[in-house]
Amino acid sequence: MEKITMDHGSGGKLSHKLIKEVVVKAFSNPSLNKLDDSAILNLSNLGGCTGRIAFTTDSYVVNPIFFPGGDIGMLAVNGTVNDLSMMGAIPLYLSASCIVEEGFPMPDFKKIIQSMKKASQQAGVYIVTGDLKVVEKGAADKMFVNTSGIGIVPKGVNLSAHNARRSDVIILSGSIADHGIAIINERNNLKLKGNLKTDSQPLNFLVKKMLGVSKNIHCLRDPTRGGLATTLNEIAESSGKGIEIDENRVPIKKKVSSSCEMLGFDPLYVANEGKLIAIVAEKDAKKVILAMKSTKQGRNAAIIGKVVQDKENKVILKTSIGGRRILDMMTGEQLPRIC
Amino acid sequence: MEKITMDHGSGGKLSHKLIKEVVVKAFSNPSLNKLDDSAILNLSNLGGCTGRIAFTTDSYVVNPIFFPGGDIGMLAVNGTVNDLSMMGAIPLYLSASCIVEEGFPMPDFKKIIQSMKKASQQAGVYIVTGDLKVVEKGAADKMFVNTSGIGIVPKGVNLSAHNARRSDVIILSGSIADHGIAIINERNNLKLKGNLKTDSQPLNFLVKKMLGVSKNIHCLRDPTRGGLATTLNEIAESSGKGIEIDENRVPIKKKVSSSCEMLGFDPLYVANEGKLIAIVAEKDAKKVILAMKSTKQGRNAAIIGKVVQDKENKVILKTSIGGRRILDMMTGEQLPRIC
Repeated sequence: MEKITMDHGSGGKLSHKLIKEVVVKAFSNPSLNKLDDSAILNLSNLGGCTGRIAFTTDSYVVNPIFFPGGDIGMLAVNGTVNDLSMMGAIPLYLSASCIVEEGFPMPDFKKIIQSMKKASQQAGVYIVTGDLKVVEKGAADKMFVNTSGIGIVPKGVNLSAHNARRSDVIILSGSIADHGIAIINERNNLKLKGNLKTDSQPLNFLVKKMLGVSKNIHCLRDPTRGGLATTLNEIAESSGKGIEIDENRVPIKKKVSSSCEMLGFDPLYVANEGKLIAIVAEKDAKKVILAMKSTKQGRNAAIIGKVVQDKENKVILKTSIGGRRILDMMTGEQLPRIC
Repeated sequence: MEKITMDHGSGGKLSHKLIKEVVVKAFSNPSLNKLDDSAILNLSNLGGCTGRIAFTTDSYVVNPIFFPGGDIGMLAVNGTVNDLSMMGAIPLYLSASCIVEEGFPMPDFKKIIQSMKKASQQAGVYIVTGDLKVVEKGAADKMFVNTSGIGIVPKGVNLSAHNARRSDVIILSGSIADHGIAIINERNNLKLKGNLKTDSQPLNFLVKKMLGVSKNIHCLRDPTRGGLATTLNEIAESSGKGIEIDENRVPIKKKVSSSCEMLGFDPLYVANEGKLIAIVAEKDAKKVILAMKSTKQGRNAAIIGKVVQDKENKVILKTSIGGRRILDMMTGEQLPRIC
């Protein structure tokens, strides 16, 4: 009998297959089928409501729940704020639902709630509804957090992974692989040095700045599970285009890069929690980069590649020694419970 | 060191204390602080959006995940549809987020997804966004499901547990304790007879009918975890009133009643998943009852008591032999993982 494997939850190839063939097939509707970071919902003419909202959900099962630079609570708040932001929505309201294992220390629970409070204040959102379930010892590993979120999509904003066009420029907001390496270092008590910590942060202010200077941003996406390579593949596939990336231009911290090398991880597949990829019309790339660099969240922004015509929707990496290799979606599960 | 206990997740007294003193205190905002079944959010003047929406979330950890009359999937869909309905909102969009244990049978996963599909079709809602996480064997018990939901609140509808007024009538839509007893029978393999099955069902059509005949429905609430007694206490406390209930008038199936007696459960504290309590102005009670009785979900509706003036916000049960006893909120956790 077929069973659910860790790989089904990796965010990589097998996750996509399961979600497309089982879940999307069953629930099929235009908002879901796009598989964007949030669903865009038109409220027009319903009980006096008008306008468009974005709606998203994520369950967090990160292990450990406390790690350098953050914890499961701030990760959950920032993650949902970012999924709304990637649609150009202004994040407004969050729900928070916790599943807690019996015997979980009350001080840790309070610490996580305080961390969610702080993160929501920093992002300027309100946690307006919630739920708490407790299960017997052994029925859940410490604590899981679900956050769902609602944002308003301003008029004229239409971002989607389906919108990449040929010759669009690919901008990355900062260094990759920080979150994944911080978690793996903490979980396995590797004691890697170099102030390795999560990059989890809210991206709504950065996005607002970007949308303020350009009407030609076609797609935003945060490269979380599966890393930069998987997210680029999602965009290429959804848009029916190819993508070329220049390895030399992808920002990565020295210490993170050497940790990846030591551990045998390809940083292009390691999770990020506070970075975004922007697909932007070439003519606006410079002013978008300038706007990004003026913010804390985007100060290391860089153009890393471009969208090309390609019927096979491949993502190609031009390596630092001049080679070209295909970057596929992540296969297998290299870093379980990373978020 | 203080620890989280099963009782913190019971939906009873200790849950309320933890939620009020830790969670609501931290996240404090007007929508959350009401602690209604959904948050009501005013979208006016935000990016061209207007109107009011309801927003709610629930995580489901029911054990077993398959039980007579349903499973965790339909329970999750109906539960969130009902939390929206209790605010008078028209449920529209749901999110679905699953945490699955490694090794979980794929056929069971597919069965649950199909069950969610069916339940969402029956309720007339769309599942528009989702998430899937897989954790290692032993890190979660089979499968947990979170559903969050959005509905539109029609103009003029203002329901809240804070709105009960003196001499309002209390209507119950049907028999109590069906869900809890069905779960406990299945979980413990008790083989109790009498077609014991969950009452999980969507209540949005019933609510629409009720709101169609009366503008004097002040509060709706579905008595889930903690049962009828706990929910009545929530309403009494939020409204600053007392409540008197007539034991003889509370509908309960014979087989459920005798099962409760045998197992030592008070049915007033046993969970329901497809029933509602309506607090209605006396003058409209008859027409509301008539409207309810015309529907499948409300055909056994009955007036079970009334709202009274009481500074101590007590819920009083007039027993079948003519006595009066105080019905407190549930203390302790009699039925863990009931939803």
